[in-house]
Amino acid sequence: MGSSYRAPLDDMRFALYDVLGAETLFAQLGFTDATRDVVDAILDEGARFNENVLAPLNEIGDRVGCTYDKATGDVRTPPGFREAYAKFVEGGWSGLVSPVEFGGQGMPHLAGLPLKEMIDAANLAWGNFPLLSHGATEALVHHGEAWQREVFLKPIVDGRWTGTMCLTESHCGTDLGLLKTRAEPQADGTYSITGTKIFITAGEHDFTDNIVHLVLARLPDAPAGVKGISLFIVPKMQVSRDGVVGQRNAVRCGALEHKMGIHGSATCVINFDGAQGYLIGAPNKGLIAMFTMMNTARLAVGLQGLGLSDRAYQNALRYARERLQMRSLSGPKAPDKPADPIIVHPDVRRMLLTCKALIEGGRVLGYHAASLVDITSHSTDEAQRTEADALLGFVTPIVKACLTEWGVECTYHAMQCFGGHGYIAEHGMEQLARDARITTLYEGTTGIQALDLVGRKIMQQQGVGLRVFLGMIDAFCREHASNEAMAEFTGPLRELANDWQALTMQVGQRAVGNAEEVGAASYDYLFYSGYAALAYWWARSVAAADASDRPAAFKQAKRDTARFYFARVLPRTKAHAAMIASGAGPVMAMAADAFGD
Amino acid sequence: MGSSYRAPLDDMRFALYDVLGAETLFAQLGFTDATRDVVDAILDEGARFNENVLAPLNEIGDRVGCTYDKATGDVRTPPGFREAYAKFVEGGWSGLVSPVEFGGQGMPHLAGLPLKEMIDAANLAWGNFPLLSHGATEALVHHGEAWQREVFLKPIVDGRWTGTMCLTESHCGTDLGLLKTRAEPQADGTYSITGTKIFITAGEHDFTDNIVHLVLARLPDAPAGVKGISLFIVPKMQVSRDGVVGQRNAVRCGALEHKMGIHGSATCVINFDGAQGYLIGAPNKGLIAMFTMMNTARLAVGLQGLGLSDRAYQNALRYARERLQMRSLSGPKAPDKPADPIIVHPDVRRMLLTCKALIEGGRVLGYHAASLVDITSHSTDEAQRTEADALLGFVTPIVKACLTEWGVECTYHAMQCFGGHGYIAEHGMEQLARDARITTLYEGTTGIQALDLVGRKIMQQQGVGLRVFLGMIDAFCREHASNEAMAEFTGPLRELANDWQALTMQVGQRAVGNAEEVGAASYDYLFYSGYAALAYWWARSVAAADASDRPAAFKQAKRDTARFYFARVLPRTKAHAAMIASGAGPVMAMAADAFGD
Repeated sequence: MGSSYRAPLDDMRFALYDVLGAETLFAQLGFTDATRDVVDAILDEGARFNENVLAPLNEIGDRVGCTYDKATGDVRTPPGFREAYAKFVEGGWSGLVSPVEFGGQGMPHLAGLPLKEMIDAANLAWGNFPLLSHGATEALVHHGEAWQREVFLKPIVDGRWTGTMCLTESHCGTDLGLLKTRAEPQADGTYSITGTKIFITAGEHDFTDNIVHLVLARLPDAPAGVKGISLFIVPKMQVSRDGVVGQRNAVRCGALEHKMGIHGSATCVINFDGAQGYLIGAPNKGLIAMFTMMNTARLAVGLQGLGLSDRAYQNALRYARERLQMRSLSGPKAPDKPADPIIVHPDVRRMLLTCKALIEGGRVLGYHAASLVDITSHSTDEAQRTEADALLGFVTPIVKACLTEWGVECTYHAMQCFGGHGYIAEHGMEQLARDARITTLYEGTTGIQALDLVGRKIMQQQGVGLRVFLGMIDAFCREHASNEAMAEFTGPLRELANDWQALTMQVGQRAVGNAEEVGAASYDYLFYSGYAALAYWWARSVAAADASDRPAAFKQAKRDTARFYFARVLPRTKAHAAMIASGAGPVMAMAADAFGD
Repeated sequence: MGSSYRAPLDDMRFALYDVLGAETLFAQLGFTDATRDVVDAILDEGARFNENVLAPLNEIGDRVGCTYDKATGDVRTPPGFREAYAKFVEGGWSGLVSPVEFGGQGMPHLAGLPLKEMIDAANLAWGNFPLLSHGATEALVHHGEAWQREVFLKPIVDGRWTGTMCLTESHCGTDLGLLKTRAEPQADGTYSITGTKIFITAGEHDFTDNIVHLVLARLPDAPAGVKGISLFIVPKMQVSRDGVVGQRNAVRCGALEHKMGIHGSATCVINFDGAQGYLIGAPNKGLIAMFTMMNTARLAVGLQGLGLSDRAYQNALRYARERLQMRSLSGPKAPDKPADPIIVHPDVRRMLLTCKALIEGGRVLGYHAASLVDITSHSTDEAQRTEADALLGFVTPIVKACLTEWGVECTYHAMQCFGGHGYIAEHGMEQLARDARITTLYEGTTGIQALDLVGRKIMQQQGVGLRVFLGMIDAFCREHASNEAMAEFTGPLRELANDWQALTMQVGQRAVGNAEEVGAASYDYLFYSGYAALAYWWARSVAAADASDRPAAFKQAKRDTARFYFARVLPRTKAHAAMIASGAGPVMAMAADAFGD
């Protein structure tokens, strides 16, 4: 029993090659090894690994979870997790998109993203271990000194060690300016780190001998707030500058959190008790280094929502085809059976098609963001880089918030298709819903993403990313201006783009007079933007399918799903626009003591 | 730790007395004992019982759950549950709204509903035991023979025994016409019942010595489908017609389901292996008797959504006032503290106010439905009864679907207010979200409620219930036509009523040509109706507050919440209307094999 998973290779390739033109892009960016043959082989091999190794461990990971040994502070991962990690490392997956100079394979992020999606769908909890390593890799690549990369980065890239991000403390999550962990300089140039961090994913485990913690802490006399935070490398086992592993560092897991889901992911309290650490980057500039990690981490968490949605959808679809219950309102569709399969019922179709539209559209949305990461890091065209960077900043909070909220929604619909059976553990659907629930919370809640979008990307950066997106829509609509088969999409899309722009102006003008307008509009503006962006990607998907040599049924399915999206999902923008239009007044009027007792 | 609960007595009284005029209504319906003094005393006493006895058991109920003894088939409820039930019975709560002639206290349903809400908030899983007894009571009152009421009803009313509803089988949930459980007539006038029922709430437990199962089964040669289903009384311990309890009946719990939530509620597989049963009601008319139970059960499950929402909101509100994180966008609000309480942030307020608006509005919506139950059963005015019956049929699926979906939404928002801490079990928020998730599934999924509303209440009954509701809106708007203070609500309300009517016509006309239009519109039509109904109740609530002698702050809070509702929640109707307008085409076009592999 439990839920099953098959990697949607065909649609992944469609998103990569047909919609996003990955072949041309990779060649243009100088990824000479990332030919279609190679990428296809990676996808095939990745599908096998995920379907056969990780997916079957998903249920036991939830049921057994990670366990904590109070006496030793050790954490044991669920049965099979450690062995799966060994196979992952053996298969060379840990360094897939890491730079060749540090032992990675140097593949584009866009080529690695389908693998990431597969892992998230196959076993989200397990996937958090390599995910955190990836975050640490990013920080070390961009901010580490040469010796730090040699000593700490290479073992992470080759999978011998893993990484963490130690930000949160019990009294500060979003507001890192409040953090209290201290770093005292030592005579030998190291730092003594003392403090307690919570919610540390992969903070302790039995996969590897060493764990490289990246820790935010305050130097003595550091300025208050976020301008006084520095970043430190604090390994579980002490490591000298020449790479010799020494004794156990004063780093210990103090507890595991009991969570709603992702039980196989170790969420640790980590105590640093005068632990030896190295400063990474400049003093008091830790937050900048951390932001490097956070942007890619936010895209990665968005993908988690996508992966879970797809697994949930696949299982709901199978159930909807098998489960016989009631007759179709327009007469029996399976007269030889005692009842019709429930996929004939409009409301079941509504739920399935909502998932399908959000998943396939969301896949292009997420993959596109990864292509921007590749452009910003590998393009030799400065104008292209600048534009991609602005666009990436704009779409990152959208990808994070929308894909994760849609993950909650799709796992909801999928459970609902199962009726009461969806609530029973053995079908595996409720696990997906519980696992999905973390994704809208960690790496910045949905509200934080919304504030990043409106406060920073629209207001501070004057909407430069939005303008790039609107330019893409305009170019697409012009390109297809005389294409009658696309008129049903380009017409509404053009209108939507105008409304999107007008709405942005409206929010911007209001915010000039009242800063609260930014926060009051943020959530609805983000989702308006997400649905508008998806409308564009759905129109592009239909055009890409039509232009491809794929079977007629494939093209028709894309068109039918796009039509459903425009008719049955996109109208959510009407509600969001109306809510934004009402301004901050209704949100801010209530006195804090009037909310209740 | 864990979440806490305080009964919102003040707002409950406001809904009962100020908005719904319960005092006048009870007098008019002849509930001479249900004076305000008595009802108030019941509420106070109920609050004490729920806050002090049931609420503290909520967490252990989730953590320990019910346990099953394979050897004996016995089920043990979580620590404290059994003792709490004894106190419940001792306090006379089990028969609060049951007829006096069967040992009940004969209170109006409307007076009992706040108690029900308290139980659902305090301990949903525990509340399922008396809830199922209530369902059995309804069926026995309306369909039982005199001796059956004497022998089976009285012990249920006084709490010595409990009841169940045994409908579902593994291959049939919604589609009861497929059920296979058999009933063979015996020489002594009893029936031998054989079959396996699943998802039987309170099917086995340690609260009482006997359990009265109401079981749907087929007589030999019964017609196929729903017209061949009969209802039987099948007690766990055999009981003779003169009430003598005999030996153990051939009824056994075969397993407990492992569920996402409500772990303290025993969800049983029940095996009937030639068990002795009595026919209740006419042969082959079992579904009609079952519908009697289902309507009140649907209202009851709606209340579960309300209760959970309120508990989640109370805890999120407390956290939002205590948790310090970031400064307000418009400048520090607690400059003496390291950061502002998060309730200053617009997006946190948006989430809290959405909950508050849905909860307080939903309370009136749900309580009003209970008042209709009292009118249909106790009014001596036939026209009033007929009208109430039509309106009750119309609002029942709305109450069930909306209050439960809003329960999912509010527990979601409340968790979100906690940030990552919401995902950690110790805060108790994730339990509320898991518990809430069952409510949109059992007693008919949301999709089934929607089909009942549009297929039966609008199409078959030609919208008679809607017309009554529109008449209420019209009367209210006329009454306040010259009330300037109400114009901000009555204006939009009048427009909404017109649109609601037009939308109904649109759906009806489309459905004439294509039966699939009913199903394709149903979900969005139901929620459109729910939000429209809530707009009416919010306008009424503002008017009722203004007309009362409550403090100015109370009146202002009602007005502010209503404004928020109209500005920030009601616009969802725009999306629903647009989705309905797109018709069945986008939902039905996709071929079943085109949804995916």
